[in-house]
Amino acid sequence: MASPNENPPTKYGVLLFPGFQALDVFGPLDILNILSKYHRPKPMDLVVVAATLDPVSTTVSDAEFGQRIVPTHTFDTAPEDIEVLLVPGGMGTREDAIAGPAIAYVKKIFPKLRYLLTVCTGSALVAQAGLLEGKRATTNKTVWKWATAQGPNVDWVLEARWVTDNNIWTSSGISAGISAGIDMMYAFVSAMYGEETAQDIADVSEYRRNTDPTDDPFVKLADV
Amino acid sequence: MASPNENPPTKYGVLLFPGFQALDVFGPLDILNILSKYHRPKPMDLVVVAATLDPVSTTVSDAEFGQRIVPTHTFDTAPEDIEVLLVPGGMGTREDAIAGPAIAYVKKIFPKLRYLLTVCTGSALVAQAGLLEGKRATTNKTVWKWATAQGPNVDWVLEARWVTDNNIWTSSGISAGISAGIDMMYAFVSAMYGEETAQDIADVSEYRRNTDPTDDPFVKLADV
Repeated sequence: MASPNENPPTKYGVLLFPGFQALDVFGPLDILNILSKYHRPKPMDLVVVAATLDPVSTTVSDAEFGQRIVPTHTFDTAPEDIEVLLVPGGMGTREDAIAGPAIAYVKKIFPKLRYLLTVCTGSALVAQAGLLEGKRATTNKTVWKWATAQGPNVDWVLEARWVTDNNIWTSSGISAGISAGIDMMYAFVSAMYGEETAQDIADVSEYRRNTDPTDDPFVKLADV
Repeated sequence: MASPNENPPTKYGVLLFPGFQALDVFGPLDILNILSKYHRPKPMDLVVVAATLDPVSTTVSDAEFGQRIVPTHTFDTAPEDIEVLLVPGGMGTREDAIAGPAIAYVKKIFPKLRYLLTVCTGSALVAQAGLLEGKRATTNKTVWKWATAQGPNVDWVLEARWVTDNNIWTSSGISAGISAGIDMMYAFVSAMYGEETAQDIADVSEYRRNTDPTDDPFVKLADV
């Protein structure tokens, strides 16, 4: 059972870009949404950071079937006291014009963060910022070849639901099913706020947690 | 194995209100996001419907930790040819000023829908529109007492991940863990587009589906 962190983080940021995967964001964030209401410490803060203040779509092109989220800050205006940054994956990570500014932002903010959490191909984006050099990390298995190529010096762990290396937590992903990113966030909440808190949220959410970070039934889909 | 529907729906709507539960929306929708890209028929359409065109927050009060989604239409301007409407739950369903207009809209649009899908306390909202009278339905187990009281003539099914009665599909919930609403959506996609399509999406999503609608481990948390 994880000991509660004595000074758990309260200032969160989520990085968005066109073509982000909705569940990479809302899977983990909805856990924090509940935490922010019912559990203390308070107040918890969330900034939504993107290249501009225009609503950010789950699709690269606005003409497609998608949903749009309103940012609160841009890469230039985002506060410097974000403690935990969540970086999702999604098709946008594969478009240089979209990924480039996001990579630059993460590289800039990382020294000030307490924790960096990535879901799915978010780790490929963060690898391109040079932040995973020599570190253990994982990513989406179904695009393993492309994703791991974005960080040739990263110690990529194939069979893992999520991996922690120092203050960087990376999860496998979730194109639409959640699971890995959500399970990672429950583990993070357990580490930061205590196991009882994490389990209370899972119970009220009617969610059956997967607490084993190595339990990765999708490794067989990896295109190694 | 479900036979594919010969004329599957392509026009979807999601109803939003302040204090909607993010995962009630994005769990099921991210499955459709993937379907809309990789599977046919095309084109698939999504309208996001709310009381006004202002971004809709996951919180009742904008001051709290939340995320805001941009509607595409209001209850007055929403197109009449929506085939499938998704109604999430969340704390907003418990605020009369918020729930009232949503209830009126669902009541108005229902005769034109092919399918109505609810997640979590979305069924409590829809019950208040009188649409579940004498029908089998389920809802969030952890607020069972309040939710079922919103529809005294509904045949509420306690032990169920999701329930289908004619063209109304209702799932248990998800405050932050997904699962029931996502599992229901996979079953819906299987019924509409074929089991192979549904499983392909689950595979690319690295999601382990729960395909048994009666498998409900959270019934023990119900406050009956």
